[in-house]
Amino acid sequence: MSAGTRILNAALRSKIMSAEEAAALIPSGVNVGMSGFTGAGHPKSVPAALAKRIMDANLYGKKFKIGVWTGASTAPELDGALAMVDGVEMRLPYQSDPTCRKRINAGEMEYIDIHLSHVAQSVWFGFLGKLDVAVVEVSGILEDGRLIPSSSVGNNKTWLDCADKVILEVNSWQHPALEGMHDIYYGTALPPHRKPIPIIKTDDRIGEPYFRVDPNKIIAIVETHQTDRNSAFSAPDESSRKIAGHILEFLEHEVAKGRLPKNLLPLQSGVGNIANAVLAGLNKGPFENLTAYTEVLQDGMLEMIKSGKLTVASATAFSLSPSALTELNSDLDRFKHNIILRPQEISNHPEVIRRLGVIAMNGMIEADIYGNVNSTHVMGTKIMNGIGGSGDFARNAFLSFFMTPSQAKGGEISCIVPMVSHVDHTEHDVQVIVTEQGLADLRGLSPKQRAKVVIENCAHPHFKPALMDYYKRSLDHSPGKQTPHLLEEALAWHLRYLREGQM
Amino acid sequence: MSAGTRILNAALRSKIMSAEEAAALIPSGVNVGMSGFTGAGHPKSVPAALAKRIMDANLYGKKFKIGVWTGASTAPELDGALAMVDGVEMRLPYQSDPTCRKRINAGEMEYIDIHLSHVAQSVWFGFLGKLDVAVVEVSGILEDGRLIPSSSVGNNKTWLDCADKVILEVNSWQHPALEGMHDIYYGTALPPHRKPIPIIKTDDRIGEPYFRVDPNKIIAIVETHQTDRNSAFSAPDESSRKIAGHILEFLEHEVAKGRLPKNLLPLQSGVGNIANAVLAGLNKGPFENLTAYTEVLQDGMLEMIKSGKLTVASATAFSLSPSALTELNSDLDRFKHNIILRPQEISNHPEVIRRLGVIAMNGMIEADIYGNVNSTHVMGTKIMNGIGGSGDFARNAFLSFFMTPSQAKGGEISCIVPMVSHVDHTEHDVQVIVTEQGLADLRGLSPKQRAKVVIENCAHPHFKPALMDYYKRSLDHSPGKQTPHLLEEALAWHLRYLREGQM
Repeated sequence: MSAGTRILNAALRSKIMSAEEAAALIPSGVNVGMSGFTGAGHPKSVPAALAKRIMDANLYGKKFKIGVWTGASTAPELDGALAMVDGVEMRLPYQSDPTCRKRINAGEMEYIDIHLSHVAQSVWFGFLGKLDVAVVEVSGILEDGRLIPSSSVGNNKTWLDCADKVILEVNSWQHPALEGMHDIYYGTALPPHRKPIPIIKTDDRIGEPYFRVDPNKIIAIVETHQTDRNSAFSAPDESSRKIAGHILEFLEHEVAKGRLPKNLLPLQSGVGNIANAVLAGLNKGPFENLTAYTEVLQDGMLEMIKSGKLTVASATAFSLSPSALTELNSDLDRFKHNIILRPQEISNHPEVIRRLGVIAMNGMIEADIYGNVNSTHVMGTKIMNGIGGSGDFARNAFLSFFMTPSQAKGGEISCIVPMVSHVDHTEHDVQVIVTEQGLADLRGLSPKQRAKVVIENCAHPHFKPALMDYYKRSLDHSPGKQTPHLLEEALAWHLRYLREGQM
Repeated sequence: MSAGTRILNAALRSKIMSAEEAAALIPSGVNVGMSGFTGAGHPKSVPAALAKRIMDANLYGKKFKIGVWTGASTAPELDGALAMVDGVEMRLPYQSDPTCRKRINAGEMEYIDIHLSHVAQSVWFGFLGKLDVAVVEVSGILEDGRLIPSSSVGNNKTWLDCADKVILEVNSWQHPALEGMHDIYYGTALPPHRKPIPIIKTDDRIGEPYFRVDPNKIIAIVETHQTDRNSAFSAPDESSRKIAGHILEFLEHEVAKGRLPKNLLPLQSGVGNIANAVLAGLNKGPFENLTAYTEVLQDGMLEMIKSGKLTVASATAFSLSPSALTELNSDLDRFKHNIILRPQEISNHPEVIRRLGVIAMNGMIEADIYGNVNSTHVMGTKIMNGIGGSGDFARNAFLSFFMTPSQAKGGEISCIVPMVSHVDHTEHDVQVIVTEQGLADLRGLSPKQRAKVVIENCAHPHFKPALMDYYKRSLDHSPGKQTPHLLEEALAWHLRYLREGQM
């Protein structure tokens, strides 16, 4: 099937042009809302064509930069290409591209790290400035002009509604069976006109399967046929398997105590090898009829749908390894009945997450002995990716896990530290910390009680004595003993790593 | 009217006893859920009688400690009395009593600082352990056994539902016209059975005016006739008036830009002199037909109801100075039509706060140049009061302000610092910082952009050069430049204050 046959609206077919011609319609200085959430559903050709245009401008000594707003992370042909030519003035709300990250940490690109549920409303509120252009991948256009969404929804509804001008990429590589899988909610409003979001079960559909767009705003349509791009996962290593084991044991314990139903509550899982190991563990575990209310559907959840363990997954995007993507696309007609893709303001909505009682499982960079979590900044200053939806889920979850191996860099870094070098999740929002060493259940514990459990259960034996020594000396000498600290030493571990290469 | 005539249920009248007899029914080692939110609606006599019992036990060498759970802060005859005799093993979720605070910071009392919206559900989830006894002040008992709530609602519904045993204090000092003012919502549930909270306007009533309680659980009823106790506010000082002025100017600007309706959006205001100054400013300001969706109704809001500026205030408690309380009680029949008191899980519910688009205004201890806020810990280790509802509101608000004078301790302390010594609200949740020096609008700014605005607009001139120097050197030498820091200096200002008495 050629891309052309995906554009059923005759008037819109007249707007088909090349990626280069479409990129030429984006001037310097504008804010561009692009589709894309993880390496799924991002525009595949216009951003790279725009990057080339920017390179040309630079070669002639002209400054050419834009603001780039997305759903979350994208792929090399978007973030990588635009960062390579230094074409991004301001990036938001999340990224994970190596070139982009390098620019940001070199101070060459501004970056705002935003709770993913806050992005769309901040644009509607007018808090982020004017959105000039939307560049959105879709998998087709209906005869009446409505758009069939692609493999991620992200903020696309908001970009299409709020942008002055719209450029569409119609990607014929996307599976036709995506049609009908999406649930685009058009019931949001500005305060004081908001109503309850009427989701009460993971599989509730509250919207429609298509985006609406004012055809007069569409300035270009570009046909593409290119694959989504996500990295392969590594097979779960020993450490990830242990973390998964601790979580499963804990969940079984909670069910036994009557604090969780037998089929648990809707699962949220971040991306990455540890998250995938936990899902693999759940797939072999004792729980049946599970559901997921999460941001991204990754390999582990696909396996759970296949095995029948997971009856429905609600997300805003796919985040599948190449092999899992092939598998999904070979049988999408079957899978589609178990999957709902929603706008990220709904997939990550505090109201819905709290109502459903989600079990949130997210990775982190480091935790401190009192249960504060750093999800974003290496040694306090270098951004890794961003907070993403972890705050939306952790704050509003029924149960919230943060997971990391106890050490990094071959043992040079302890991921349990006296004081985190940057705080993304405060002591008020962190219930359970898990490393391969064990699990610290912080519910109902004061900071001093937490410290003992975190050090004892989660720290690597190599760092445990030094952590306990810090805690005990803090207890003796701290001016206040609600959260004992020695401020002269609190960040010394990080500083030692920066100076000597080990904590 | 004597307390006796407030107890219309004949069977329950048989359970009337003295405070001492009731206190004798509370054994050591139990968790007690007490009423009270600010100095309103707390039990006035049983806690002090219990404190005397604990003192007696201590005199005979017996350990006697209980867990004390409340709505928020209380008064000397509860927190003060129990802390004085070292009778509290674990305190949650908020306190502001000097004796209590001293015990906590001396390491003699465990304290868990919890988002106020999280407390009730954590008890229902079983995360905080068993609630053994409820001690709840009410203003009357109906013939059918239902209870007329007092001047605060807090977590009383949950305490009455979840505790094994219930002790009631019927306080005939509370105004009879409180009857009908409350809106007790019985629609909450455990996941997966939760439904939307059906509030869509500040003045929506979704519950009933009375508490239900199983009469078989009631083990004692104590009659009291004692006043609520809150401190007087000082008249707004120069600094508070300037902060109020900056906020008013900002709100007018937002209305002019079309980002806020003319009558704004529902107001939330923390307690204290700055908050009261802002309300006094609003009372003289250009905005009409305002509403409040907040935790506590303080003097400033009462003035706004009187002037007609505020049409309705929804809260969970009164927090009125003695003179304002006298005024309220002299005309409660009139005021009651403008006031709704709800359980704190509803007054602080993220779902409702986000839906209504609340304008949140909260005080803080310090902010750092990147917009992280410390609301709780002096110099990182000593708890002041607690996070209270500030996180519930700030994260979910339409607009969120954090306010402080730029200096404390007569200029020895800068309230704008390179890095906060404790984080309660992260960069992701802080939109506007205000001091008497000016206002920093952080919306849509990257951390580096924020630093310049915070230093320029909010820091005291005395500290501005040193802050700018820190920022510029960080920009040169920080390993990462997303959030530039020099870790060896980041907490040096606090350390210098601890060692030398000035930053």
